[in-house]
Amino acid sequence: MNTDGNTGSFYSSDRIVAKYLIETPLPVQQAAEMIAGEQSSGTFVPLPGETEDLKQRARAKVLTIELLESVSQPSLPGARLPRGGGDKFQRAEITVAFPLDNVGLNLPTLLATVAGNLFELCEVSGLKLIDLELPWAFTARYSGPRFGIVGTRKLSGVIGRPIIGTIIKPSVGLTPKQTAEIVRNLGKAGIDFIKDDELMANPPHSPLRERIQAVMSEINSLADRTGRKLMYAFNISDDLDAMLEHHDLVRDAGGTCIMVSLNSIGLAALATLRKHSELPIHGHRNGWGLITRHPMLGVSFVVYQKLWRLAGADHLHVNGLRNKFWEPDDSVLQSIQACLSPLFDGYFAMPVVSSGQWAGQAPDTFARAKTTDLIFLAGGGIMAHAGGPSAGLNSIQQAWEAAVHEIDLQQYAASHPELAAALEQFGNR
Amino acid sequence: MNTDGNTGSFYSSDRIVAKYLIETPLPVQQAAEMIAGEQSSGTFVPLPGETEDLKQRARAKVLTIELLESVSQPSLPGARLPRGGGDKFQRAEITVAFPLDNVGLNLPTLLATVAGNLFELCEVSGLKLIDLELPWAFTARYSGPRFGIVGTRKLSGVIGRPIIGTIIKPSVGLTPKQTAEIVRNLGKAGIDFIKDDELMANPPHSPLRERIQAVMSEINSLADRTGRKLMYAFNISDDLDAMLEHHDLVRDAGGTCIMVSLNSIGLAALATLRKHSELPIHGHRNGWGLITRHPMLGVSFVVYQKLWRLAGADHLHVNGLRNKFWEPDDSVLQSIQACLSPLFDGYFAMPVVSSGQWAGQAPDTFARAKTTDLIFLAGGGIMAHAGGPSAGLNSIQQAWEAAVHEIDLQQYAASHPELAAALEQFGNR
Repeated sequence: MNTDGNTGSFYSSDRIVAKYLIETPLPVQQAAEMIAGEQSSGTFVPLPGETEDLKQRARAKVLTIELLESVSQPSLPGARLPRGGGDKFQRAEITVAFPLDNVGLNLPTLLATVAGNLFELCEVSGLKLIDLELPWAFTARYSGPRFGIVGTRKLSGVIGRPIIGTIIKPSVGLTPKQTAEIVRNLGKAGIDFIKDDELMANPPHSPLRERIQAVMSEINSLADRTGRKLMYAFNISDDLDAMLEHHDLVRDAGGTCIMVSLNSIGLAALATLRKHSELPIHGHRNGWGLITRHPMLGVSFVVYQKLWRLAGADHLHVNGLRNKFWEPDDSVLQSIQACLSPLFDGYFAMPVVSSGQWAGQAPDTFARAKTTDLIFLAGGGIMAHAGGPSAGLNSIQQAWEAAVHEIDLQQYAASHPELAAALEQFGNR
Repeated sequence: MNTDGNTGSFYSSDRIVAKYLIETPLPVQQAAEMIAGEQSSGTFVPLPGETEDLKQRARAKVLTIELLESVSQPSLPGARLPRGGGDKFQRAEITVAFPLDNVGLNLPTLLATVAGNLFELCEVSGLKLIDLELPWAFTARYSGPRFGIVGTRKLSGVIGRPIIGTIIKPSVGLTPKQTAEIVRNLGKAGIDFIKDDELMANPPHSPLRERIQAVMSEINSLADRTGRKLMYAFNISDDLDAMLEHHDLVRDAGGTCIMVSLNSIGLAALATLRKHSELPIHGHRNGWGLITRHPMLGVSFVVYQKLWRLAGADHLHVNGLRNKFWEPDDSVLQSIQACLSPLFDGYFAMPVVSSGQWAGQAPDTFARAKTTDLIFLAGGGIMAHAGGPSAGLNSIQQAWEAAVHEIDLQQYAASHPELAAALEQFGNR
């Protein structure tokens, strides 16, 4: 299975292939067949209408089984042991092929098929969807990111380096006027990108309509002077009617990006928003920990990012190296890689690096991810810099200059005081 | 905390109260403050704009902490131990109050606030959102189920007993014509309710438009003869544009119910669909196992059902006693209870009992849930009955007659051959 994406003729097929990591007290073959049956033609007893012809056509097929280790304790509760006991839980990777005709070109039903009831099966004590191959047919309905990397770079006027940005902090509480002041100062300092916090959408203390006007007024003035427009991702997360209306407000005010909390709005809303949107969609994945943090439950980022790219997300959050969350660095790097691997004829989403980021992560992010196709966001790393937000921004710009030229950060800091101050302030955390 | 719902004057406040079960290697107070900070004003360093006034206004507050047991192994990976080690992980229930003004009347942002980034915190090795109190202000924007129990009973013409129904099986593969034939036969036998499988929405082998025409033609003919209209829940799960279009097709054909896969379409899509829908919305929760199966991760059904009722789901799946999935009976009963507990001024959703159901579960479902306000669905229990689907349906009708009159099932079976046959066929599984 090619986890790098859905390229090549193999995928021009009429089947959907899902790869699962499972754990089961049953013989693995039996559990795998149960999964395939439950998610296609099956019920708990044979049915009158279930002819051989229909079974041949509609039943999902177990393609491969690769045994892994066994464990003595189940990862999840509720697995039923086979008759006569059974004292171990076998782990395995299995692939299951679903006929495309079962699902049609329908993202919500695709999800119901490959990641629906099967998390509830008592035949497994663990189940994680770890990869998904989709036939090209999906491109007929889902066009993927409208802007992606190239379009985002064009709109923001940044090439050859990461798009450097920040999140408006404090997360909540600022008025539109206070927000616009922060934007003005950061804009003057040359920042590429600013986003609302995911906790800030359209609250009474900062109505989105007013925030758009106040912020875009600053951004448009600045763009008139510099010829380059700061990209601001307005958090329009809401019911779909409201999101469409707010998208129009952003566009009409000259804005160049909208942001949504992906898990909170859902796949159907994103796909519909994508059809109407004339702006890049910044996809925030808050709630992601619920979906993936347990190693034997949920969905991997490899699958997650394919679904949201297909539905139209232009930017996808991936955490960052040495983030303040639970996620290990290797996992972050795999997520960056996933967003930058082709899906169908590209459908690239720009990985958004964030969480506890400051100048210090630039060199190893570049060395290990081997790309500048990133949106690199620092909150405190910019806003709390001892020299002020402008110096904070400079420190990160300098760190990325050093990184792409493979110059040691300490060495570069000798002639770059903002970077030096950042290393001094944040270097021993 | 009143887990029965949001009734009484206490809730007419301006705050959102979330209750979490957490597990942490840190002192619980410290972890709780971290959660409150992260999900309101916080970042990893103090910020210039974060004034005392703003903190007072915007910061979430830890209300209560109740210590539970401690464990020696973390439930989730990635929790960072405090300096100097720490060899146990303390569990606790905590409640956190968020100012309503932080969020506004915005369901996706509510979710981002109470169930967003915090699953990723390295300060916890387990986190489950187990209850949620919402201020009445939400009713100004979210009207809850449009039909609920009373509306569903009116449309289906069933009072004083559960609405008895089935799922079209096999799950996938049948043509519209074959589906309509099944509907005709079950309709003649007097079934109240039929639903599409969650795997069946609008696939090439059964286009929804054709299925609606074929099925409603049978249902309308039958209703003309009997004066009572069988409720059929058409699975319209799709992008929102398509769902709205398909809703109209169902309505125009005289249909009385639409069904969606809640987790696949998302909260924003449901809330928008609710605004436009003239039909009850049957909420299927496939994917639910991912959200709740691990005891120390995710969201409880108490919270889940409040969110979806608020967004407008009229029916909510809850599994059933002795279901074929992992879920224990006590959990199923709590879920039924949750749907039938008032939220604001009612907002009741009809619990949908399903999964491995047949006549045998009627008596203890009634005895333990103490209600007939249920949609009771049997797949194989109807369709695979040795006497055919009509006899299968009769066996369940008879079982519920016995149940509500508290007559022993075996005794009732002596004069009801379809029930007797069901006990014979399914009784020893």
